[in-house]
Amino acid sequence: MAQDNLSAILVKPNEIKLEQRPIPEPGPNQVLLQMEVVGICGSDVHYWLEGRCGPFILEKPMVMGHEASGTVVKCGSEVTSLEPGDRVAIEPGVPCRRCEFCKTGRYNICPDILFCATPPVDGNLARYFVTDEDFCFKLPCNMSFEDGTLMEPLAVAVHACKLGKVTIGSVCLVLGAGPIGLCTVAAFRAYGARKILVTDLLDYRLELAKKMGANFTLNTSGMDEDAVTEKVLSLLKEEPHVSVECAGSEQCARLCMKVTRAGGVMILLGMGGLEMTMPFGAALVKEITSIGSFRYNNDYPEAIEMVRSGRADVRGLVTHHFTLEETQKAYETHRDKIGNPIKIMIHCNPNWKPE
Amino acid sequence: MAQDNLSAILVKPNEIKLEQRPIPEPGPNQVLLQMEVVGICGSDVHYWLEGRCGPFILEKPMVMGHEASGTVVKCGSEVTSLEPGDRVAIEPGVPCRRCEFCKTGRYNICPDILFCATPPVDGNLARYFVTDEDFCFKLPCNMSFEDGTLMEPLAVAVHACKLGKVTIGSVCLVLGAGPIGLCTVAAFRAYGARKILVTDLLDYRLELAKKMGANFTLNTSGMDEDAVTEKVLSLLKEEPHVSVECAGSEQCARLCMKVTRAGGVMILLGMGGLEMTMPFGAALVKEITSIGSFRYNNDYPEAIEMVRSGRADVRGLVTHHFTLEETQKAYETHRDKIGNPIKIMIHCNPNWKPE
Amino acid sequence: MAQDNLSAILVKPNEIKLEQRPIPEPGPNQVLLQMEVVGICGSDVHYWLEGRCGPFILEKPMVMGHEASGTVVKCGSEVTSLEPGDRVAIEPGVPCRRCEFCKTGRYNICPDILFCATPPVDGNLARYFVTDEDFCFKLPCNMSFEDGTLMEPLAVAVHACKLGKVTIGSVCLVLGAGPIGLCTVAAFRAYGARKILVTDLLDYRLELAKKMGANFTLNTSGMDEDAVTEKVLSLLKEEPHVSVECAGSEQCARLCMKVTRAGGVMILLGMGGLEMTMPFGAALVKEITSIGSFRYNNDYPEAIEMVRSGRADVRGLVTHHFTLEETQKAYETHRDKIGNPIKIMIHCNPNWKPE
Amino acid sequence: MAQDNLSAILVKPNEIKLEQRPIPEPGPNQVLLQMEVVGICGSDVHYWLEGRCGPFILEKPMVMGHEASGTVVKCGSEVTSLEPGDRVAIEPGVPCRRCEFCKTGRYNICPDILFCATPPVDGNLARYFVTDEDFCFKLPCNMSFEDGTLMEPLAVAVHACKLGKVTIGSVCLVLGAGPIGLCTVAAFRAYGARKILVTDLLDYRLELAKKMGANFTLNTSGMDEDAVTEKVLSLLKEEPHVSVECAGSEQCARLCMKVTRAGGVMILLGMGGLEMTMPFGAALVKEITSIGSFRYNNDYPEAIEMVRSGRADVRGLVTHHFTLEETQKAYETHRDKIGNPIKIMIHCNPNWKPE
Repeated sequence: MAQDNLSAILVKPNEIKLEQRPIPEPGPNQVLLQMEVVGICGSDVHYWLEGRCGPFILEKPMVMGHEASGTVVKCGSEVTSLEPGDRVAIEPGVPCRRCEFCKTGRYNICPDILFCATPPVDGNLARYFVTDEDFCFKLPCNMSFEDGTLMEPLAVAVHACKLGKVTIGSVCLVLGAGPIGLCTVAAFRAYGARKILVTDLLDYRLELAKKMGANFTLNTSGMDEDAVTEKVLSLLKEEPHVSVECAGSEQCARLCMKVTRAGGVMILLGMGGLEMTMPFGAALVKEITSIGSFRYNNDYPEAIEMVRSGRADVRGLVTHHFTLEETQKAYETHRDKIGNPIKIMIHCNPNWKPE
Repeated sequence: MAQDNLSAILVKPNEIKLEQRPIPEPGPNQVLLQMEVVGICGSDVHYWLEGRCGPFILEKPMVMGHEASGTVVKCGSEVTSLEPGDRVAIEPGVPCRRCEFCKTGRYNICPDILFCATPPVDGNLARYFVTDEDFCFKLPCNMSFEDGTLMEPLAVAVHACKLGKVTIGSVCLVLGAGPIGLCTVAAFRAYGARKILVTDLLDYRLELAKKMGANFTLNTSGMDEDAVTEKVLSLLKEEPHVSVECAGSEQCARLCMKVTRAGGVMILLGMGGLEMTMPFGAALVKEITSIGSFRYNNDYPEAIEMVRSGRADVRGLVTHHFTLEETQKAYETHRDKIGNPIKIMIHCNPNWKPE
Repeated sequence: MAQDNLSAILVKPNEIKLEQRPIPEPGPNQVLLQMEVVGICGSDVHYWLEGRCGPFILEKPMVMGHEASGTVVKCGSEVTSLEPGDRVAIEPGVPCRRCEFCKTGRYNICPDILFCATPPVDGNLARYFVTDEDFCFKLPCNMSFEDGTLMEPLAVAVHACKLGKVTIGSVCLVLGAGPIGLCTVAAFRAYGARKILVTDLLDYRLELAKKMGANFTLNTSGMDEDAVTEKVLSLLKEEPHVSVECAGSEQCARLCMKVTRAGGVMILLGMGGLEMTMPFGAALVKEITSIGSFRYNNDYPEAIEMVRSGRADVRGLVTHHFTLEETQKAYETHRDKIGNPIKIMIHCNPNWKPE
Repeated sequence: MAQDNLSAILVKPNEIKLEQRPIPEPGPNQVLLQMEVVGICGSDVHYWLEGRCGPFILEKPMVMGHEASGTVVKCGSEVTSLEPGDRVAIEPGVPCRRCEFCKTGRYNICPDILFCATPPVDGNLARYFVTDEDFCFKLPCNMSFEDGTLMEPLAVAVHACKLGKVTIGSVCLVLGAGPIGLCTVAAFRAYGARKILVTDLLDYRLELAKKMGANFTLNTSGMDEDAVTEKVLSLLKEEPHVSVECAGSEQCARLCMKVTRAGGVMILLGMGGLEMTMPFGAALVKEITSIGSFRYNNDYPEAIEMVRSGRADVRGLVTHHFTLEETQKAYETHRDKIGNPIKIMIHCNPNWKPE
């Protein structure tokens, strides 16, 4: 086996370094993966630029990367569902399996989860990575490694859809058309949403939202809260059953609370304002549920099935490609918004060639 | 039948008038009730003093009263479950029965609900009142009219408990020990809460909270947010599964969001700040659900059963008694906090005599 | 307005008569409908041939028909959502709106529901029919009256899907490819089923099942229980999450209980054996839920949205057309299986012309 | 530490042998327990007499026992919640933690669960036993080891209550007053059941049912199905929301299906007839859910809290005491119904003395 395990390490804020790490050995229920494609997520960029994201703080060097796909190269002694050569999407967090949250099926809020590239846990932006068998999901033959990598943000969206009980006929509002917002649009559509309205400040993102399945888009630049509220309701002609905040902005969160239908759900996905001033008065008499949606649990299979079956097509999100050696440049491209980036892919396989 | 239908009318803010109204006739599915006991709720006092409560505004004279019990005196032609002489607790809102909310079992958020003493709908602080048969609940023989009246705030608490999925072993936090907070304590206890902590600014209310079943009480006068947070967690020794804001205060709502356990629920019951600044950051990664609990639906039977079976004892909430003719004085007593009022009862039956 | 209200009446078993009835007047919340298309359901034929279906028994003459679409011709004084000329699908059961089931959102099991053509309630196989506004659903412009009529069996399927929690990725088994089984296939597909296997005894029905979206079909003629069990599992390669019995047969129900995945759901839709001998042993240790699915509640909107959006295409179910005057012949065609009937449509509008 | 690990082994049907086994070492997340009290369950007796219980078959010698309590004597290196001296109730099944059922919170149906004394897994009727930390539950100071042992059948009942959504006001029917039926009565009462009717063939068990909280009891000896049905409904005066079959009898299961209220739940707890002939006709139109309840998951904490708080008192179930050395005699006592046994306790601690 190759001895090259080049790994992209965030040494401290603003300093990414590529260095060799030992290739790890899989435990009995684990597999060794040759990493294929790792995407850049907004949270990665937060760690790079600020050394933190929400409540999580970088305190020592950490391998980056958590949106990923790979190829199984070695299986632990008790692995039964995978074999070398299998192409997989990698769910990046392995929970403790023993706490009250794990045992009741909500492992995403396990306090001891080991989540790739959330300090201090190493990520998988490297040549090799070991993880547990049951967090690797075989890719169907009509899905590429890039598709597999996109399962991470799509699983975030699937999780939000389940919390929001999106179903056939749902009227939906999505605030923010970044990668998570766009995946949310795709997932809403796959679950059968009847109307989807997306807002953002950038037209190129709204264009993409239409391709993902939005019926209505609204560029809210320069509009005040009342104007946005009015416009949203006049476009939808009814209040949304489900609103999702994907922008991390107080203004967007306020809009959710104002327009969501009585008995409906507003979901906070965007890691934005830690403190937000919100119009609770109306929400109370309408019994609106507000829920933070955090990562995912048991959501990868549905994300994969969405894409396999053609119900969701997220390929349009990929705008840039880099090699593992070009990691620094990939991050700079994301930071500087060069070429209207949505999802930037880093190819870890040294045999990868741009098309 | 008597021709006396003396009714307590809120003519405009700060002006209550007693006047005769015609005794109404029940429709086919309705009953005519001789009113027995009507409680004063905080919302009643808001209408009296300010002409509004939350989004609802007094625009014309309105009969007051919505926490009530009565005796059936006449039944409509199609009434089958009640007969004259039946003693009943009265659920004060009759929904449209036809909208998407009614047909899916959430009639409390029916936009066309006719809710007693929510403008412009007349209440039942009068000698007689007509309502639909299925919103009258027979009182078991071990329950008094005053108990029946208390079913209204207790149903509010039952509804919150259901939204919070309170069950045997739940750890609960109640912010505010007014009538709704105290009923919430009683309901939490009845559903099997393992630990209940109650906060308030007034010691006499906290004393009552203990009688209702609180394990811990905390007078938060003069404490800052961090101190309260720390004290709450040190008393409970674990994070609460369910927190309920019953004070209508931003500080209390913030505490709920900060201390609720991952995966838990915080419930907003208090009609307080229309705008609140809240610490959403932590709530998001803990997937805390925040839900406004509005009135009740299908909750009276459980409230009654709680008291009938002795699981909840809310009688201790009653602190004052007045006759219908003394309505003005009753309201002033509430407003001026004369004699540490919790729940003030107005007796509509002219034959009532103080014990 | 025309005075013709020709109505198809089941006088007693085996005797259908066409006779004029007065055109009814709508009440305040009702509409008068000119009937357009009424389908024949298996239950209609049971009443015609045997005078009963399951526990319901014909005791006096009754207008037939409950799968129906119509055009609004007159609105009651309080109708707000419809106006003359509106084309609607008609949900055929109007519940009491007052019982414990109605008030908790399960109006399909209201004991006092008035359901068309379930004795003794008259159906709508006539020129005119009056019903409540909120049980009429406007047809989108891309849906025909025949589509509207098909919303009845499709709503049955939608209801079963909800009870079975069918979602993206579900593995499903459908026993019986009559109209209800075929609608179930279409609904499973619309909700995102990953694999659907359908069994029947007739190849022409299984062909149609494939068109509705089945991945696998199995003609079980001459196969014993073990052989069918083995074949079903070898085709699906895994146990189904959801199994639906649509054939009214003990053999099919047994298969559901044997093969459903642990934690899964088996749904009884077929009105078949009142007494069935079932293999409960395995079901118990696998915690399989068995649930009778009865009609529908709040399911028409989703059925309509499925067809409007192209997620389900049920038009292929229509095999025959008759006029109201030809009702007897239509029923005979169904009974004698002339021309491989699936869904037979009776056109009530005298202006209808076959294409 | 003592070297005595006397263990009660079922060598083959009808042959129990006491022999020494090595004292096992705890793994990192495990604890070594000195066993205190182990109860005899009906399934144990099935294995003893017949070598099988339901689908599970004895194929080699197996240590018996799964209802148990113990004292922690040694902790693995990563154990944090327990320490030597802790008194615990032992949940007897440790699941794989990796399959679809474990990861969605339904570990009771994990196909790879290692469940004490279900062949071929050894039980804990011995001096010492090792298990995972998170399947040991500390006993509150007001609970004895015998109480801890009773948590096993009580957890079975708690699980059934949750599946049945038993809550304040529920009307409940329990068929069979053996240990599981009696625990179900206690749990129903703790969750707030309004009426509980229990049937059995033995008066001494029905007497105990009353002590556990039954309002009504019915000895059905010599009664036919119609007579029992009629009597049950005349006693309850309404249909039960929840019925639980704890007798493993077709007649009892049939009764559940016949009398359960529309929209209600019937639960199969009794491992009885593998094949049963059931009256599905009525169940279908009433949308009754029938569900097998298998063991428990995450239910021990609620069972313990029920007893700790005094909501349930199951101590009355204990009728007999034996030492580990008297295991054979204990089983014979159960088999021969000597002294009206309900729950027989075997004391594994050599220092135990009868009171």
